[in-house]
Amino acid sequence: MKPFRLSFIGFGNVGQALARLLLAKQNDLLTQHHISFCVTGIATNRHGKAINPDGIDLNKALALMENHQSLAGLASVATPDNFIDFIKACPADVLFENSPVNHQTGQPAVSHIRAGLENNQHCITANKGTVVHGYRQLTDLALRKGKRFLFESTVMDGAPIFSLFRASLPSANIQQFEGILNSTTNMILEKMEQGLSFEEAVDYTQSIGLAETDPTADVDGWDAAIKVAALVTVLLSQPMLPQDVRREGISGISPEMITRAVADGKRWKLVCRAFKENDRWCGTVKPELVSSSSVLYNINGSSSYCEFKTDTLPGLGVVEGNPGPQTTAYGLLSDFINLTRGI
Amino acid sequence: MKPFRLSFIGFGNVGQALARLLLAKQNDLLTQHHISFCVTGIATNRHGKAINPDGIDLNKALALMENHQSLAGLASVATPDNFIDFIKACPADVLFENSPVNHQTGQPAVSHIRAGLENNQHCITANKGTVVHGYRQLTDLALRKGKRFLFESTVMDGAPIFSLFRASLPSANIQQFEGILNSTTNMILEKMEQGLSFEEAVDYTQSIGLAETDPTADVDGWDAAIKVAALVTVLLSQPMLPQDVRREGISGISPEMITRAVADGKRWKLVCRAFKENDRWCGTVKPELVSSSSVLYNINGSSSYCEFKTDTLPGLGVVEGNPGPQTTAYGLLSDFINLTRGI
Repeated sequence: MKPFRLSFIGFGNVGQALARLLLAKQNDLLTQHHISFCVTGIATNRHGKAINPDGIDLNKALALMENHQSLAGLASVATPDNFIDFIKACPADVLFENSPVNHQTGQPAVSHIRAGLENNQHCITANKGTVVHGYRQLTDLALRKGKRFLFESTVMDGAPIFSLFRASLPSANIQQFEGILNSTTNMILEKMEQGLSFEEAVDYTQSIGLAETDPTADVDGWDAAIKVAALVTVLLSQPMLPQDVRREGISGISPEMITRAVADGKRWKLVCRAFKENDRWCGTVKPELVSSSSVLYNINGSSSYCEFKTDTLPGLGVVEGNPGPQTTAYGLLSDFINLTRGI
Repeated sequence: MKPFRLSFIGFGNVGQALARLLLAKQNDLLTQHHISFCVTGIATNRHGKAINPDGIDLNKALALMENHQSLAGLASVATPDNFIDFIKACPADVLFENSPVNHQTGQPAVSHIRAGLENNQHCITANKGTVVHGYRQLTDLALRKGKRFLFESTVMDGAPIFSLFRASLPSANIQQFEGILNSTTNMILEKMEQGLSFEEAVDYTQSIGLAETDPTADVDGWDAAIKVAALVTVLLSQPMLPQDVRREGISGISPEMITRAVADGKRWKLVCRAFKENDRWCGTVKPELVSSSSVLYNINGSSSYCEFKTDTLPGLGVVEGNPGPQTTAYGLLSDFINLTRGI
């Protein structure tokens, strides 16, 4: 059995969590799935790049990252500094693309994945931008190459959504979905219910590593919109861009509105929806007053939720509690395992 | 492409819903999954049995059932009256076993499935009894025969649970689960919150076809216990019988307790759990006071819920809303499709 050669494009929180998970699951992978692996390349923006066709010691790579040192010393061969050249030079069977998301263009991740597929590498990503900006072309390219382009972790982290429809729900046609897909805004709204101001709540979400330094993408609903667009694009086969989603963020929700809602036994939630309108799928992201009888009401803190109405199941909901880099990493791992068994 | 020959053992609400779903999805099955089928046999207890190797007209069979007439006239060959002889005589690739559940022994369904597998038929069932009383032996037999024994619909109807772990959650180890797995008791408790007495609430669940004529199996927690036992047996690889589950039903919940809970912003729910105790899996079913911050609180009416804590995902929940014979039928259909593609 030949080991799968893996390369990591991007080695931040998620990439490192994946490395740790691969190490922790090494034995399981072998015994349960007959998978062995070696990491032949890691490319980062700020910590250098390394290709080693004989396998990079992942523990060493993790230690270097922890000490803010460069990975360059792990290279055993000349390692190109340009990402695309790196992907072409690195002998890999599976490429994990986890560079930062660009909501507007999906770049440079889309180009990385295109290069990976063109070089006969399966490509797995947690990068939502690649799905909304490249799903059709990358999936077609993967098909032509006999490879896979998988992205379970792009929506609700490691909770199975795409593989659920691919594997567990054959012949189910989605009629609509609704959910809470952005953790940061959900946490901000909850903290405001507890009496924090909007700014304090944003600070809190940043302090626990949930929100980015610039929280705009979350607060204005862009992150939720890109997830709606990804779900519509993949599960409903209608290309949708984040800007196609009717989007309203949470900055219009005042402390008074929160107080009044709580007094009425309700909660403000940033709700995502997709539904048919004049034969076209329509996506929306907007704050909604949710009553206490809805499951949405109890999606607390950083948890997320999506409920699908299909022709075969009138209400199938998936809850993900306590997400983090580890759960995103698991989505990447499950994609990896699933591509080895054709799921 | 040879059509799959299907046989139905039991043709009650679920069997008929499956027949209707197969007819409705006939085109999808062909175009999306390259599956064609014909039904070569239907066996019932009270409406006769029919084998027709050239294919029974399902619409005719459904019409006969609707008019309370015998199916015997649909037979084109001699049709044994004994179920086991019927299974041996019926030329089938896939057997759908949907005879009534026997919680204590799993019979006669276990014997039907054993006969099916021995005659080289894949076996699919919504019958929980077969899982808790026959999982190991039937799965081993299926393996030896190169066939499948699948039972998605036994827990939470058509909502994917078993296929979820089989396909979408590779290498995830369950650490515990909790849920609401019995619709009837959930509905009874909700109706009691609305002011009905226990007896009136039971009557209501019977009037909408949720509870059996004898509601004991639901009310006393046996149905929930058998589902916990099935989940532990299959997902945690520890054989568990319904009587191994620490079980307490809802008959001790008085209207006063309900009123007090509601006044405190809480609800009584019949909660199912599995957890490790002294290195053994332990299953429990008992009424619990659930606070309004729990997802369990908002599992209303006939909906059900199960949340899994795994080593890779700290909280993955699955909600099923509005179940019925159609959703159970969908679980059977998804098993059928999945066995054709090795999932």
